[in-house]
Amino acid sequence: MLDINSLLKLNYGMYIVSSAKDGKFNGCIVNSLFQIVPEPPMIATSINKECLTHEYITNSNILTASVLSIKADMVFIRGFGFRSGRDINKFENINYKLGREGVPIIVDNTVAFVEARVLHSYEIETHTLFIAKVTACETINPSEEPMTYTHYRDIKHGRTPKAAATYYKPESHK
Amino acid sequence: MLDINSLLKLNYGMYIVSSAKDGKFNGCIVNSLFQIVPEPPMIATSINKECLTHEYITNSNILTASVLSIKADMVFIRGFGFRSGRDINKFENINYKLGREGVPIIVDNTVAFVEARVLHSYEIETHTLFIAKVTACETINPSEEPMTYTHYRDIKHGRTPKAAATYYKPESHK
Repeated sequence: MLDINSLLKLNYGMYIVSSAKDGKFNGCIVNSLFQIVPEPPMIATSINKECLTHEYITNSNILTASVLSIKADMVFIRGFGFRSGRDINKFENINYKLGREGVPIIVDNTVAFVEARVLHSYEIETHTLFIAKVTACETINPSEEPMTYTHYRDIKHGRTPKAAATYYKPESHK
Repeated sequence: MLDINSLLKLNYGMYIVSSAKDGKFNGCIVNSLFQIVPEPPMIATSINKECLTHEYITNSNILTASVLSIKADMVFIRGFGFRSGRDINKFENINYKLGREGVPIIVDNTVAFVEARVLHSYEIETHTLFIAKVTACETINPSEEPMTYTHYRDIKHGRTPKAAATYYKPESHK
């Protein structure tokens, strides 16, 4: 049996992954991001090859990830999750700071952030799995609770865009 | 700043990843397991190269993952997380069923399970990142809530063993 709904029982956080290219910034909502090695700390994240952030990461080999707070509202999330940086500047009216390599770190609705250098990239079907070494990480709002993907879906009734690693059309698996 | 504690703000689920070799079974507790591609559904999981389960997965190219229920107690978790299958048979007195390829799927304290075939293996420092295509997945206890890694650590006060992708010695990062 391939009951794709059961894959929603896997747990994730909610992140904005950002990168930069030629002085331009972009970021997108990602749930598929995790630590894979403890020492040196390494993370992996899966990004759709069509996303502008994918192009920027491939160009700079640097990414940042802001751990979204449970308090982030849908207007904020939609700003990064359902629009393309090719059409709009997602960083307008957003508070961010620059990491050590010139890649922005979003601080609005952020519990903690990670800055990382990509060491390996593996193309897997529609996505690229970026393996990155953590070069900086910090908790900036220790009292705030990180949002889970389950919370985003079940409590905030958030949708999953087509570019996401966990997107699926239910009818395609009947 | 490299405040390794901030990496604990990333979210994970809790899983038992199992495999088989020469008719023997083994499994271990894993938190670093995610869907990385929606169609065909693919998952990635990071397993320490010293774990017996790593040897079994490398041999069979098949793994299963049981999504742990929040109701799983520490005795059950410790049975898979802090002992080696080289010393004991972890499947004694455990309810499981066999997947299509002869790999056990633990059903005790399980919300849902995934069976997957490994297509790529990438060695990253101490761990191997297995990229696997989902061949079966099913929810077996829809009313039960999956356990998060945060719940395991903060509510159950669970420790993180040395083999884990998210293990760290705080003093090594001061």
